[in-house]
Amino acid sequence: MAKNLTQQLIERHLLSGRMQAGEAIQLKIDQTLCQDATGTMVMLEFEALGVAQVNAELSAQYVDHNLIQADFKNADDHLFLQSAARKWGLWFSRPGNGISHAVHMACFGVPGKTLLGSDSHTCAGGSLGMLAMGAGGLQVALAMAGMPYSLTMPEVVGVEVTGKLPPWVSAKDVILEMLRRYDVKGGVNKIFEYYGPGLENLTAMDRHVIANMGQEMGATASVFPADHNVRAFLCQQGRADDFTELQAEEGATYDHHDSLDLSRIEPLIACPSSPGKVVTVREVAGRPIYQSYIGSSANPGLRDFVVPARMVDGRRVPEQVSLDINPSTRQLLEEISRSGDLNRLLQAGARLHQTGCNGCIGMGQAPASGRISLRTVPRNFPGRSGTKEDKVYLCSPETATAGALTGKITDPRDMDMDYPVFSEPEKLPDMRPLLQPPRDLSQEIPVAIELIKGPNIQPLPEFEPLPDKISGPILLKTGNNVSTDEILPAGTDILPLRSNIPAISHYTFSRIDDTFYKRAKQLDGDSFVIGGENYGQGSSREHAAIAPRYLGVRAVIAVSMARIHRRNLINFGIVPLLFQKAEDLARLNQGDSLAVENFPGQLQQGREIDVRLADGKTLQVTHDMSEEEVATVLAGGLINQVRKQI
Amino acid sequence: MAKNLTQQLIERHLLSGRMQAGEAIQLKIDQTLCQDATGTMVMLEFEALGVAQVNAELSAQYVDHNLIQADFKNADDHLFLQSAARKWGLWFSRPGNGISHAVHMACFGVPGKTLLGSDSHTCAGGSLGMLAMGAGGLQVALAMAGMPYSLTMPEVVGVEVTGKLPPWVSAKDVILEMLRRYDVKGGVNKIFEYYGPGLENLTAMDRHVIANMGQEMGATASVFPADHNVRAFLCQQGRADDFTELQAEEGATYDHHDSLDLSRIEPLIACPSSPGKVVTVREVAGRPIYQSYIGSSANPGLRDFVVPARMVDGRRVPEQVSLDINPSTRQLLEEISRSGDLNRLLQAGARLHQTGCNGCIGMGQAPASGRISLRTVPRNFPGRSGTKEDKVYLCSPETATAGALTGKITDPRDMDMDYPVFSEPEKLPDMRPLLQPPRDLSQEIPVAIELIKGPNIQPLPEFEPLPDKISGPILLKTGNNVSTDEILPAGTDILPLRSNIPAISHYTFSRIDDTFYKRAKQLDGDSFVIGGENYGQGSSREHAAIAPRYLGVRAVIAVSMARIHRRNLINFGIVPLLFQKAEDLARLNQGDSLAVENFPGQLQQGREIDVRLADGKTLQVTHDMSEEEVATVLAGGLINQVRKQI
Repeated sequence: MAKNLTQQLIERHLLSGRMQAGEAIQLKIDQTLCQDATGTMVMLEFEALGVAQVNAELSAQYVDHNLIQADFKNADDHLFLQSAARKWGLWFSRPGNGISHAVHMACFGVPGKTLLGSDSHTCAGGSLGMLAMGAGGLQVALAMAGMPYSLTMPEVVGVEVTGKLPPWVSAKDVILEMLRRYDVKGGVNKIFEYYGPGLENLTAMDRHVIANMGQEMGATASVFPADHNVRAFLCQQGRADDFTELQAEEGATYDHHDSLDLSRIEPLIACPSSPGKVVTVREVAGRPIYQSYIGSSANPGLRDFVVPARMVDGRRVPEQVSLDINPSTRQLLEEISRSGDLNRLLQAGARLHQTGCNGCIGMGQAPASGRISLRTVPRNFPGRSGTKEDKVYLCSPETATAGALTGKITDPRDMDMDYPVFSEPEKLPDMRPLLQPPRDLSQEIPVAIELIKGPNIQPLPEFEPLPDKISGPILLKTGNNVSTDEILPAGTDILPLRSNIPAISHYTFSRIDDTFYKRAKQLDGDSFVIGGENYGQGSSREHAAIAPRYLGVRAVIAVSMARIHRRNLINFGIVPLLFQKAEDLARLNQGDSLAVENFPGQLQQGREIDVRLADGKTLQVTHDMSEEEVATVLAGGLINQVRKQI
Repeated sequence: MAKNLTQQLIERHLLSGRMQAGEAIQLKIDQTLCQDATGTMVMLEFEALGVAQVNAELSAQYVDHNLIQADFKNADDHLFLQSAARKWGLWFSRPGNGISHAVHMACFGVPGKTLLGSDSHTCAGGSLGMLAMGAGGLQVALAMAGMPYSLTMPEVVGVEVTGKLPPWVSAKDVILEMLRRYDVKGGVNKIFEYYGPGLENLTAMDRHVIANMGQEMGATASVFPADHNVRAFLCQQGRADDFTELQAEEGATYDHHDSLDLSRIEPLIACPSSPGKVVTVREVAGRPIYQSYIGSSANPGLRDFVVPARMVDGRRVPEQVSLDINPSTRQLLEEISRSGDLNRLLQAGARLHQTGCNGCIGMGQAPASGRISLRTVPRNFPGRSGTKEDKVYLCSPETATAGALTGKITDPRDMDMDYPVFSEPEKLPDMRPLLQPPRDLSQEIPVAIELIKGPNIQPLPEFEPLPDKISGPILLKTGNNVSTDEILPAGTDILPLRSNIPAISHYTFSRIDDTFYKRAKQLDGDSFVIGGENYGQGSSREHAAIAPRYLGVRAVIAVSMARIHRRNLINFGIVPLLFQKAEDLARLNQGDSLAVENFPGQLQQGREIDVRLADGKTLQVTHDMSEEEVATVLAGGLINQVRKQI
């Protein structure tokens, strides 16, 4: 039977399980990627596993998140990561090289390979015909060790792309159109595979934009064919030899079908505070803005900076607008400096920031109180910008620039100017000479390589196996679509604590209820958290599982859960449970006492779990864990389990 | 009698007093300058004074310090400053334009004018033949209102400059040589006037470096003649018309004499943690470094970036070194982008940061624990970098770059390379179009202009007049050379609180004793602080006076005091007292109770003040305040006093 591209990629890497939607499968992972905010924990986990060196084909550690060194902590983390890369055999990318996804794509992306990364936007690698997925850090540590990656075989949505984008409409509008259709959870347990004649008109970097924000629909991955546009990209990076053509076989089928006529897409915008709240730009045009933000992994391409530069050329951004330029990579910054586009932006009044993630993860650039920020970033979860009651809109570089010039939300088609002409240069500066290569792993491990651990770098807490009975209060009941940004926030104060669980746990759920930490410490015992739909969407940070577990949370009961966070809960011994009916949610209130008797036994025996309520009644909930996952929570988490195996 | 240039400048602006060292004089101030970290307080003070608009010839408000927007606070402050500039008639320079001193010099510096700024490095303006001085914010608010600036007529040190700097030695080494001679308090109540044939070989930007760090010697100002090198600078900025030739009259004399033979200066470096701990680079060569930092108001010139760029051209900075580039102005960034020097730096592995002060004031870029940072910045006070136990060395761009390339402290003369050739371009891009000009002050004030105040912007606390008797404990006894960075630290967490005295007061003296705030709140009454020599050196931040006063400190008794801080104490009603003999310091211990009876009477009657000690004995201390200054402390500060006058 003819196979779609997703099936081909999975089949080539399938170690166990059947390639049928809903089945548990295990995949061989070729490449891994970490960024620094999750990477310190990955390295501590790798150390805890006791593995001698990296066994994946290629592993890379980037520094792009924690770039604001307010004190020693972030700088110490960078040194720690560099020493870990040297010790265990990873590539290391120093601060200033740029955002992991864009740098990895440029330096290491290879059609046909699997890539697992401790950052939810790792899925951007699908732009090159890779099977690229974000995962919790521990999963990535295991993949580095050469162990398989377990997941549920997703359904594949075939998206036929036709037509050509009109002027002033770009790749960001394409993925916003998808988000308009699927919202933030329509992609859960699905892979979106794009095919069709319209792909001719989307460059590899355009596809990066679409694949990156596939994550915002909850998708496991997005997959594009490796065609001549991918070849052009690899040639540009001086890596023509890494190209292999890949596409769906003639007559391949999909579990679901969708289509996109590029010529009918118009400028779109996601309103505060969800990537799924998409409307046309014209619907919200005229609202005054404070900030226009160009950059991030969602729009990291050269054209995403050159088009704005040529739009502002010879014009000036009004005094009340902050036009913030965040170069995605060193390569891009060099290129726009060489081409004069950087000076076009500067002369218009732009503020140039350091290369990296910056304000996208709340590392600076927070907007003023009550003011609108237009951003080309992937997410606008509440408070993620750093400002609590923020008003962040997600849009294309064209829309962000139009707003910067007019001082209000503006459909770029309504600007009285010609759409700038941009064509990709044939060659771009090679970034690899500025990455630290891994040592030769065929050589004996030099015992002399020590891990450099500053005083803020603390070992992982140990967690006990799941006891027979869990009882305790509901310490928090949340609403729907709670993101990991709300469970464990980022920002300049909190991100530097990522390698220190006792310290970072102070901020657990602080965006939702800033008494949580205090109440948990007062309780000093087991507790439950109740969630709504799509619990734990967004970023892959496993701290959103480790910190609650450290504070005694033993189970989360939710209507539904986001893929990566669900797995992170399991990895650290928190039992993920699901309501049988959404109405059951109303039976539980914050403060209620719950108890689960014979917890391990119930988990092993079937899908139903009896939870005893405060009034003596029983509520039946379910779980959807595989046998292997059940074994993990029983062991008190994956590290305990793997340690026993090794 | 022939006058030196300092005397000419003072005479032209003298409103009252005699131009004789030690006499109280009042000067007309032509121009004022504020940066954002002190400027929000200046604007709150200007508002408290109730003045309708700026009456100085030119006032400018820059945003260069608080550029990391971790939440709404800094962004709100920027909007507040912009609205204040619009309301009262100041130039406003948006974030991204650059460091106040360099931008002011480029846009507004005029030979012969007086400039008063709420930043201690305002003295850099002396490079253009201005009389430029740093002062507390309230003094600047008064100057904006058109009121005279009162100071003690300083002694003038004539420094004859001869010769020419050898290769690899630059202006930073010249001022480090001065610091080697004078240390951090040898310049107190002095103005350094440079003259002689060697000035031929120092450009206006070289002189900026020397004048800027004159502050580090405690000098009131540094003055250079306005000669053809100054003309060349103004031509480069498209402002040839603003040039007037100025120099000391033939046969002019000085209170003190010194000389500098440029050809005999070698690469120097200030060791941790004082700008006065100067040794030759060779004395400390070989120590491994973590960071090399290029930028700040101390080395803001084009050559300070181009020379490093050409040194690293075609080379690569080793993996363990962070080469941090901090452009000083938008103009400079545009120029190095245009010339290809930016790409030379990037290709070598440099990290490019946003234009502004950044790590120089602890806004990011803190070094890792226990590692050495080489910086071209003006100050290395303990912890100013953001890392508590930091090891910051101050040096020239040449020395910083040599260290970046070798990974250790290195005399640049020991590099095996040719000294890069640099010549100033004839023209540079005009920055003024990106500044918001003041409204036409001859027009009626539009009532519609409102101040935009976010929730963190709190009014100035009110302070009562000095009561008859003050009694209370010595809440803190410090060592020598305590800087305002230690009295009220900067950094990413604290700087955003600059417009909120109750909030920022939590950090008072936290670098020295983190129980200070708690003890002051527990006491909830009057108290004393005891200081050693040169108390309050460094930054002009008046928060280092306001916050202690807010917490009940009523008098500081020290061996000696830095000029700006002494005046800030007076401005906010803290009585600055001096020990008659340094040995008396030993008679006072932290926790001792002190009392001053008939305090106002004693201050008015003479120089001696009797302080009753806990054991019943009396310690006689002195004060050096002018009559006018005594009136200020009696009123409870300058705002109370001026309000009564208006």
